[in-house]
Amino acid sequence: METRTKISLKHIDHVAIAVPTGQLDAHVAVYEQMGFRVLHREEVYGTDQVREVLLQVGESENLLQLLEPLTPDSPVAKQIEKNGGRPGMAHVAFRVEDAQATFDQMKAEGFQIIDAAPRPGSRGTTVFFLHPKTHAEASLGVLYEIVQEGGGHG
Amino acid sequence: METRTKISLKHIDHVAIAVPTGQLDAHVAVYEQMGFRVLHREEVYGTDQVREVLLQVGESENLLQLLEPLTPDSPVAKQIEKNGGRPGMAHVAFRVEDAQATFDQMKAEGFQIIDAAPRPGSRGTTVFFLHPKTHAEASLGVLYEIVQEGGGHG
Repeated sequence: METRTKISLKHIDHVAIAVPTGQLDAHVAVYEQMGFRVLHREEVYGTDQVREVLLQVGESENLLQLLEPLTPDSPVAKQIEKNGGRPGMAHVAFRVEDAQATFDQMKAEGFQIIDAAPRPGSRGTTVFFLHPKTHAEASLGVLYEIVQEGGGHG
Repeated sequence: METRTKISLKHIDHVAIAVPTGQLDAHVAVYEQMGFRVLHREEVYGTDQVREVLLQVGESENLLQLLEPLTPDSPVAKQIEKNGGRPGMAHVAFRVEDAQATFDQMKAEGFQIIDAAPRPGSRGTTVFFLHPKTHAEASLGVLYEIVQEGGGHG
Protein backbone atom coordinates (compact mmCIF):
# COMPACT_ATOMS: atom_id res chain seq x y z
CA MET A 1 0.00 0.00 0.00
CA GLU A 2 2.79 2.40 0.94
CA THR A 3 3.68 3.76 -2.50
CA ARG A 4 0.19 3.55 -4.08
CA THR A 5 -1.89 6.63 -4.89
CA LYS A 6 -5.27 6.56 -3.13
CA ILE A 7 -8.31 5.94 -5.37
CA SER A 8 -10.08 9.27 -5.91
CA LEU A 9 -13.79 9.53 -6.84
CA LYS A 10 -15.11 13.04 -7.62
CA HIS A 11 -18.89 12.84 -7.35
CA ILE A 12 -21.90 10.73 -8.37
CA ASP A 13 -22.01 10.88 -12.18
CA HIS A 14 -25.39 9.18 -12.46
CA VAL A 15 -27.85 6.72 -10.98
CA ALA A 16 -29.18 4.36 -13.64
CA ILE A 17 -32.81 3.20 -13.65
CA ALA A 18 -33.96 0.23 -15.74
CA VAL A 19 -37.25 0.99 -17.53
CA PRO A 20 -39.28 -1.80 -19.19
CA THR A 21 -39.70 -1.66 -22.97
CA GLY A 22 -42.46 0.72 -24.07
CA GLN A 23 -42.54 2.72 -20.80
CA LEU A 24 -39.69 5.19 -21.44
CA ASP A 25 -41.74 8.16 -22.69
CA ALA A 26 -44.25 7.92 -19.81
CA HIS A 27 -41.39 7.77 -17.29
CA VAL A 28 -39.65 10.79 -18.84
CA ALA A 29 -42.90 12.79 -18.60
CA VAL A 30 -43.26 12.03 -14.87
CA TYR A 31 -39.58 12.88 -14.19
CA GLU A 32 -40.09 16.19 -16.02
CA GLN A 33 -43.08 16.87 -13.78
CA MET A 34 -40.77 16.16 -10.78
CA GLY A 35 -38.46 18.95 -12.01
CA PHE A 36 -35.84 17.02 -14.04
CA ARG A 37 -34.61 18.32 -17.39
CA VAL A 38 -33.76 16.04 -20.36
CA LEU A 39 -30.09 16.61 -21.17
CA HIS A 40 -29.35 13.89 -23.71
CA ARG A 41 -30.90 11.00 -25.63
CA GLU A 42 -28.91 8.21 -27.27
CA GLU A 43 -29.27 4.66 -28.53
CA VAL A 44 -26.30 2.66 -27.28
CA TYR A 45 -25.36 -0.56 -29.06
CA GLY A 46 -22.38 -2.85 -28.37
CA THR A 47 -22.36 -4.37 -24.87
CA ASP A 48 -25.20 -2.25 -23.51
CA GLN A 49 -28.06 -2.39 -26.11
CA VAL A 50 -30.17 0.36 -24.54
CA ARG A 51 -32.13 3.49 -25.34
CA GLU A 52 -30.80 6.05 -22.86
CA VAL A 53 -32.29 9.31 -21.56
CA LEU A 54 -30.14 11.48 -19.27
CA LEU A 55 -32.00 13.71 -16.82
CA GLN A 56 -30.21 16.49 -14.98
CA VAL A 57 -30.85 16.95 -11.24
CA GLY A 58 -31.25 20.75 -10.90
CA GLU A 59 -28.13 22.55 -12.07
CA SER A 60 -25.87 19.90 -10.52
CA GLU A 61 -23.44 17.45 -12.13
CA ASN A 62 -25.68 14.57 -11.00
CA LEU A 63 -27.76 12.75 -13.60
CA LEU A 64 -30.44 10.10 -13.66
CA GLN A 65 -29.89 7.72 -16.56
CA LEU A 66 -33.07 5.98 -17.74
CA LEU A 67 -32.27 2.78 -19.63
CA GLU A 68 -34.81 0.98 -21.81
CA PRO A 69 -33.53 -2.28 -23.35
CA LEU A 70 -33.31 -2.31 -27.16
CA THR A 71 -33.00 -6.10 -27.34
CA PRO A 72 -33.70 -9.07 -25.03
CA ASP A 73 -29.89 -9.59 -24.86
CA SER A 74 -29.35 -6.23 -23.15
CA PRO A 75 -28.04 -6.62 -19.57
CA VAL A 76 -30.81 -4.16 -18.62
CA ALA A 77 -33.46 -6.56 -20.01
CA LYS A 78 -32.03 -9.24 -17.71
CA GLN A 79 -32.16 -6.89 -14.70
CA ILE A 80 -35.81 -6.05 -15.41
CA GLU A 81 -36.64 -9.76 -15.79
CA LYS A 82 -34.96 -10.51 -12.41
CA ASN A 83 -37.06 -7.70 -10.94
CA GLY A 84 -40.34 -9.33 -12.02
CA GLY A 85 -40.74 -7.13 -15.10
CA ARG A 86 -40.77 -3.94 -13.06
CA PRO A 87 -38.56 -0.84 -13.37
CA GLY A 88 -35.88 -0.35 -10.70
CA MET A 89 -32.40 0.88 -9.83
CA ALA A 90 -29.73 -0.60 -12.09
CA HIS A 91 -26.39 0.89 -11.05
CA VAL A 92 -24.59 3.88 -9.53
CA ALA A 93 -21.74 5.59 -11.41
CA PHE A 94 -18.93 7.70 -9.92
CA ARG A 95 -16.97 10.31 -11.90
CA VAL A 96 -13.17 10.08 -11.95
CA GLU A 97 -10.45 12.16 -13.65
CA ASP A 98 -8.72 9.14 -15.19
CA ALA A 99 -10.55 5.83 -15.74
CA GLN A 100 -7.39 3.89 -16.66
CA ALA A 101 -5.52 5.03 -13.51
CA THR A 102 -8.57 4.15 -11.34
CA PHE A 103 -8.84 0.76 -13.08
CA ASP A 104 -5.15 0.05 -12.34
CA GLN A 105 -5.47 1.18 -8.71
CA MET A 106 -8.60 -0.94 -8.15
CA LYS A 107 -6.98 -4.01 -9.75
CA ALA A 108 -3.95 -3.53 -7.47
CA GLU A 109 -6.27 -3.26 -4.44
CA GLY A 110 -7.93 -6.57 -5.31
CA PHE A 111 -11.27 -5.25 -6.59
CA GLN A 112 -13.24 -7.52 -8.98
CA ILE A 113 -13.88 -5.70 -12.25
CA ILE A 114 -16.30 -6.89 -14.96
CA ASP A 115 -14.61 -5.18 -17.94
CA ALA A 116 -11.16 -6.33 -19.06
CA ALA A 117 -10.21 -2.68 -19.56
CA PRO A 118 -11.90 0.77 -19.60
CA ARG A 119 -14.20 0.99 -22.65
CA PRO A 120 -16.40 3.53 -24.47
CA GLY A 121 -19.63 4.51 -22.67
CA SER A 122 -22.38 6.83 -23.95
CA ARG A 123 -21.78 10.56 -24.73
CA GLY A 124 -18.08 9.93 -25.45
CA THR A 125 -17.24 8.76 -21.92
CA THR A 126 -14.77 6.05 -20.88
CA VAL A 127 -16.20 3.57 -18.37
CA PHE A 128 -15.81 0.28 -16.53
CA PHE A 129 -18.04 -1.68 -14.15
CA LEU A 130 -17.07 -3.20 -10.81
CA HIS A 131 -18.46 -6.68 -10.12
CA PRO A 132 -21.19 -6.63 -7.38
CA LYS A 133 -19.07 -9.23 -5.52
CA THR A 134 -16.57 -6.34 -5.28
CA HIS A 135 -13.77 -7.69 -3.09
CA ALA A 136 -12.65 -10.68 -1.03
CA GLU A 137 -13.33 -8.58 2.11
CA ALA A 138 -17.03 -7.94 1.26
CA SER A 139 -19.56 -8.35 -1.56
CA LEU A 140 -21.13 -4.88 -1.68
CA GLY A 141 -24.02 -6.27 -3.76
CA VAL A 142 -24.36 -3.15 -5.91
CA LEU A 143 -23.33 -2.64 -9.53
CA TYR A 144 -20.92 0.33 -9.49
CA GLU A 145 -19.61 2.05 -12.61
CA ILE A 146 -16.59 4.33 -12.96
CA VAL A 147 -16.94 7.14 -15.54
CA GLN A 148 -14.40 9.50 -17.09
CA GLU A 149 -15.64 12.32 -19.33
CA GLY A 150 -14.02 11.95 -22.75
CA GLY A 151 -10.86 9.89 -22.69
CA GLY A 152 -10.47 9.22 -26.39
CA HIS A 153 -13.35 6.70 -26.60
CA GLY A 154 -16.80 6.98 -28.18
CA MET B 1 -50.40 24.19 -13.83
CA GLU B 2 -50.28 27.86 -14.89
CA THR B 3 -49.76 29.54 -11.51
CA ARG B 4 -47.77 26.76 -9.80
CA THR B 5 -44.07 27.06 -8.99
CA LYS B 6 -42.05 24.32 -10.67
CA ILE B 7 -40.63 21.62 -8.36
CA SER B 8 -36.92 22.30 -7.88
CA LEU B 9 -34.43 19.55 -6.92
CA LYS B 10 -30.85 20.73 -6.21
CA HIS B 11 -28.66 17.60 -6.43
CA ILE B 12 -28.46 13.97 -5.31
CA ASP B 13 -28.22 14.08 -1.50
CA HIS B 14 -27.46 10.37 -1.13
CA VAL B 15 -27.90 6.89 -2.52
CA ALA B 16 -28.89 4.45 0.23
CA ILE B 17 -27.57 0.88 0.32
CA ALA B 18 -29.17 -1.80 2.50
CA VAL B 19 -26.51 -3.87 4.30
CA PRO B 20 -27.43 -7.13 6.06
CA THR B 21 -27.00 -7.29 9.85
CA GLY B 22 -23.41 -7.96 10.91
CA GLN B 23 -21.83 -6.88 7.60
CA LEU B 24 -21.66 -3.11 8.13
CA ASP B 25 -18.03 -2.85 9.33
CA ALA B 26 -16.71 -5.04 6.47
CA HIS B 27 -18.63 -2.93 3.92
CA VAL B 28 -17.31 0.33 5.38
CA ALA B 29 -13.73 -1.01 5.14
CA VAL B 30 -14.16 -1.86 1.43
CA TYR B 31 -15.77 1.54 0.67
CA GLU B 32 -12.82 3.24 2.43
CA GLN B 33 -10.46 1.25 0.21
CA MET B 34 -12.49 2.54 -2.80
CA GLY B 35 -11.73 6.11 -1.69
CA PHE B 36 -14.82 7.02 0.37
CA ARG B 37 -14.53 8.89 3.67
CA VAL B 38 -16.79 8.23 6.69
CA LEU B 39 -18.59 11.49 7.45
CA HIS B 40 -21.18 10.47 10.05
CA ARG B 41 -22.47 7.50 12.05
CA GLU B 42 -25.87 7.40 13.72
CA GLU B 43 -28.42 4.96 15.10
CA VAL B 44 -31.84 6.02 13.86
CA TYR B 45 -34.94 4.81 15.71
CA GLY B 46 -38.58 5.72 15.03
CA THR B 47 -39.84 4.68 11.58
CA ASP B 48 -36.43 3.73 10.20
CA GLN B 49 -34.74 1.49 12.85
CA VAL B 50 -31.29 1.46 11.23
CA ARG B 51 -27.61 1.89 11.98
CA GLU B 52 -26.45 4.47 9.40
CA VAL B 53 -22.99 5.26 8.06
CA LEU B 54 -22.65 8.22 5.67
CA LEU B 55 -19.77 8.08 3.19
CA GLN B 56 -18.70 11.17 1.25
CA VAL B 57 -17.99 10.84 -2.50
CA GLY B 58 -14.77 12.86 -2.93
CA GLU B 59 -15.27 16.47 -1.85
CA SER B 60 -18.78 16.55 -3.35
CA GLU B 61 -22.18 17.00 -1.71
CA ASN B 62 -23.08 13.42 -2.73
CA LEU B 63 -23.19 10.74 -0.07
CA LEU B 64 -23.61 7.00 0.10
CA GLN B 65 -25.78 6.04 3.06
CA LEU B 66 -25.18 2.50 4.34
CA LEU B 67 -28.17 1.21 6.29
CA GLU B 68 -27.98 -1.85 8.56
CA PRO B 69 -31.32 -2.81 10.16
CA LEU B 70 -31.41 -2.56 13.97
CA THR B 71 -34.59 -4.65 14.24
CA PRO B 72 -36.53 -7.10 12.03
CA ASP B 73 -39.28 -4.43 11.83
CA SER B 74 -37.00 -1.98 10.00
CA PRO B 75 -38.17 -1.28 6.41
CA VAL B 76 -34.53 -1.97 5.45
CA ALA B 77 -34.75 -5.49 6.94
CA LYS B 78 -37.79 -6.09 4.70
CA GLN B 79 -35.90 -4.81 1.63
CA ILE B 80 -32.97 -7.16 2.36
CA GLU B 81 -35.36 -10.09 2.85
CA LYS B 82 -37.04 -9.32 -0.52
CA ASN B 83 -33.54 -9.26 -2.06
CA GLY B 84 -32.78 -12.81 -0.89
CA GLY B 85 -30.77 -11.71 2.14
CA ARG B 86 -28.27 -9.79 0.02
CA PRO B 87 -27.20 -6.15 0.20
CA GLY B 88 -28.50 -3.80 -2.50
CA MET B 89 -29.69 -0.33 -3.46
CA ALA B 90 -32.49 0.91 -1.18
CA HIS B 91 -33.39 4.43 -2.31
CA VAL B 92 -32.17 7.65 -3.93
CA ALA B 93 -32.54 11.00 -2.14
CA PHE B 94 -32.65 14.46 -3.71
CA ARG B 95 -31.78 17.66 -1.83
CA VAL B 96 -34.31 20.52 -1.82
CA GLU B 97 -34.34 23.97 -0.20
CA ASP B 98 -37.76 23.51 1.39
CA ALA B 99 -39.22 20.05 2.05
CA GLN B 100 -42.68 21.37 2.99
CA ALA B 101 -42.98 23.45 -0.22
CA THR B 102 -41.82 20.46 -2.32
CA PHE B 103 -44.30 18.20 -0.50
CA ASP B 104 -47.13 20.64 -1.26
CA GLN B 105 -46.10 20.99 -4.93
CA MET B 106 -45.84 17.21 -5.38
CA LYS B 107 -49.24 16.63 -3.73
CA ALA B 108 -50.77 19.26 -6.06
CA GLU B 109 -49.14 17.51 -9.07
CA GLY B 110 -50.72 14.17 -8.08
CA PHE B 111 -47.61 12.40 -6.79
CA GLN B 112 -48.14 9.52 -4.33
CA ILE B 113 -46.27 10.22 -1.09
CA ILE B 114 -45.67 7.67 1.68
CA ASP B 115 -45.34 10.12 4.59
CA ALA B 116 -48.36 12.16 5.71
CA ALA B 117 -46.06 15.18 6.09
CA PRO B 118 -42.31 15.97 6.05
CA ARG B 119 -40.68 14.38 9.14
CA PRO B 120 -37.29 14.28 10.90
CA GLY B 121 -34.55 12.28 9.12
CA SER B 122 -31.01 11.59 10.37
CA ARG B 123 -28.43 14.38 11.04
CA GLY B 124 -31.19 16.93 11.73
CA THR B 125 -32.69 16.77 8.22
CA THR B 126 -36.36 17.02 7.23
CA VAL B 127 -37.47 14.30 4.80
CA PHE B 128 -40.32 12.51 3.06
CA PHE B 129 -40.52 9.49 0.75
CA LEU B 130 -42.37 9.22 -2.54
CA HIS B 131 -44.24 5.97 -3.13
CA PRO B 132 -42.57 3.77 -5.84
CA LYS B 133 -45.94 3.79 -7.66
CA THR B 134 -45.22 7.54 -7.99
CA HIS B 135 -48.03 8.84 -10.18
CA ALA B 136 -51.10 7.81 -12.19
CA GLU B 137 -49.06 8.52 -15.37
CA ALA B 138 -46.27 6.02 -14.50
CA SER B 139 -44.99 3.85 -11.63
CA LEU B 140 -41.30 4.76 -11.59
CA GLY B 141 -40.57 1.69 -9.44
CA VAL B 142 -37.87 3.40 -7.37
CA LEU B 143 -38.07 4.62 -3.77
CA TYR B 144 -37.21 8.34 -3.92
CA GLU B 145 -36.62 10.53 -0.86
CA ILE B 146 -36.70 14.31 -0.61
CA VAL B 147 -34.24 15.84 1.89
CA GLN B 148 -33.94 19.32 3.32
CA GLU B 149 -30.93 20.15 5.50
CA GLY B 150 -32.16 21.28 8.92
CA GLY B 151 -35.74 22.50 8.87
CA GLY B 152 -36.44 22.49 12.59
CA HIS B 153 -36.62 18.70 12.92
CA GLY B 154 -34.27 16.21 14.56
